[in-house]
Amino acid sequence: MSDQPGAHVPTSVSEVARQFLAAPASDRATYPALTDAPAWSRLIDITNSALRERFSGFDFPVEVQDTKIAGVRTFVLNLRGMSTEKTPIYLDLHGGALIAGGGELCRLISSATAMINGMITWGVDYRMPPSHPYPAALDDCVAVYRALLEEREPSDIFVGGGSAGGNLAAALLVRAKEEGLPMPAALVLLSPEADLTESGDSFFTNRLFDNVLGSLHDVNLLYADGHDLSDPHLSPLFADLVGFPPTFLQSGTRDLFLSNTVRMHRRLRSAGVEAELHVFEAMPHGGFGGTSPEDLEMCAEMRRFLDRHRRKG
Amino acid sequence: MSDQPGAHVPTSVSEVARQFLAAPASDRATYPALTDAPAWSRLIDITNSALRERFSGFDFPVEVQDTKIAGVRTFVLNLRGMSTEKTPIYLDLHGGALIAGGGELCRLISSATAMINGMITWGVDYRMPPSHPYPAALDDCVAVYRALLEEREPSDIFVGGGSAGGNLAAALLVRAKEEGLPMPAALVLLSPEADLTESGDSFFTNRLFDNVLGSLHDVNLLYADGHDLSDPHLSPLFADLVGFPPTFLQSGTRDLFLSNTVRMHRRLRSAGVEAELHVFEAMPHGGFGGTSPEDLEMCAEMRRFLDRHRRKG
Repeated sequence: MSDQPGAHVPTSVSEVARQFLAAPASDRATYPALTDAPAWSRLIDITNSALRERFSGFDFPVEVQDTKIAGVRTFVLNLRGMSTEKTPIYLDLHGGALIAGGGELCRLISSATAMINGMITWGVDYRMPPSHPYPAALDDCVAVYRALLEEREPSDIFVGGGSAGGNLAAALLVRAKEEGLPMPAALVLLSPEADLTESGDSFFTNRLFDNVLGSLHDVNLLYADGHDLSDPHLSPLFADLVGFPPTFLQSGTRDLFLSNTVRMHRRLRSAGVEAELHVFEAMPHGGFGGTSPEDLEMCAEMRRFLDRHRRKG
Repeated sequence: MSDQPGAHVPTSVSEVARQFLAAPASDRATYPALTDAPAWSRLIDITNSALRERFSGFDFPVEVQDTKIAGVRTFVLNLRGMSTEKTPIYLDLHGGALIAGGGELCRLISSATAMINGMITWGVDYRMPPSHPYPAALDDCVAVYRALLEEREPSDIFVGGGSAGGNLAAALLVRAKEEGLPMPAALVLLSPEADLTESGDSFFTNRLFDNVLGSLHDVNLLYADGHDLSDPHLSPLFADLVGFPPTFLQSGTRDLFLSNTVRMHRRLRSAGVEAELHVFEAMPHGGFGGTSPEDLEMCAEMRRFLDRHRRKG
């Protein structure tokens, strides 16, 4: 056994997952000073390159409209050949630590979502730091959600996101509640960054086992731009979640955000919300690369959840 | 921070839970040779004393009948004052690593179950090693389940257990399927010892964080008595779970059996079974001592699940 605990590869997962877990942990970034915008931009470029690699070679069979909705660049994505009349719309908020995953990557990430949800997908290319810290991203999400409510009944609207997108998806519903907007039919939170204070136990216990993600504390400060990290709009884990719609939550036993996810599940349950939790064996943050049997099983669970909450008839 | 990773106490749990987590890990037993029955008996006595401590000072308001059902000592437990006519019966299989928790402890453990399930509880004092290895315990559970089917419709029968009791509860339903017996209305698996081979990743990742439980490999060999540990009757994780009833599963992020639990959840879901997973923040195997807010929240979730699966009217 190696000295590096994360190098232990379990036998209890698929061969693809084992190969993924055998890879050494990604370098833990040394973050620039909060005021050094050019250095942050360089770091974001590097992060985006790494994200882009995941999608290289994929050619999603989706029709793309690159458009502006409520002033926010939004990709409207349809599986080729899928009927769009009366089809529900899924508002998809991309991940990338609240600093990366925008532009072309937003299109790719939301295209992947469109492959599994059986709905029209709106991928919101929300503004991000260093130029646009909090509340720009959340304001953009709220603006697009308001526009979406003009297009569809709430029962035909779904909201979801992974990682940083899970932060924004939950925070969006916190804002929607405050602003008197109706809730969507359901919410999807994939390993959500629900707590920017990183107070959960898995930030400690999984720090050597998650080979994808390390602490994002400095990034969170850049995003917060002086706002309190524990504010429910920045860390929706601490919001009043009463009235939230049925919620699907996913994590893995090696996920740095395992505590984010199970705590959000418990908070939703305590608020009387129908919420289902799926935790995958030995899975780090964000899955085993996207095409492992376990990733596909997760997609199937998510699709089943969405189908169950679609309006009948 | 201490050199002992398990000594890290998170701020994300209740004060009672923090006190529980601050306690050093229990000594990892050095197990006797498999053939040294007297040494095993001494070890079992020590284990039982530790278990008994948990219940000292409790005086459960339950009526107890100490009886034999199908030749197996069984405690029939009713909350005082609760109507028993047409009340469903909950077959409760106690924990204790398949070697401990019998006799008076079985009565206490199942009394605690009777406090939360709102049903009549049958606590099965199944036979155990070193005198009675596999399949004695499972045979006893099957015999009592057969007798229970004479008393109630399957829709008025519930089966559950924690830890080793979760092993037996799931293995009982594997046997019931094979023997053509009907399934109960629902199944409860609290941090189940679903895999006696201990192949799950959390046996590695949580070995320093669970301050309750260490590997039970030698105990499992004593129980198996030469049978293959991966046999589905010994490790129901590896059984065909198609046709299982709705199942409630509980674990914690520090639980040595976290992988047992989430893998069982996934196997049930893959078999098309309605199964809900509840994972508690920073919780080790078996909870935070039984009276923390988190433990009570778990009991409330379990009770809600049981009520939902009770026959209406």
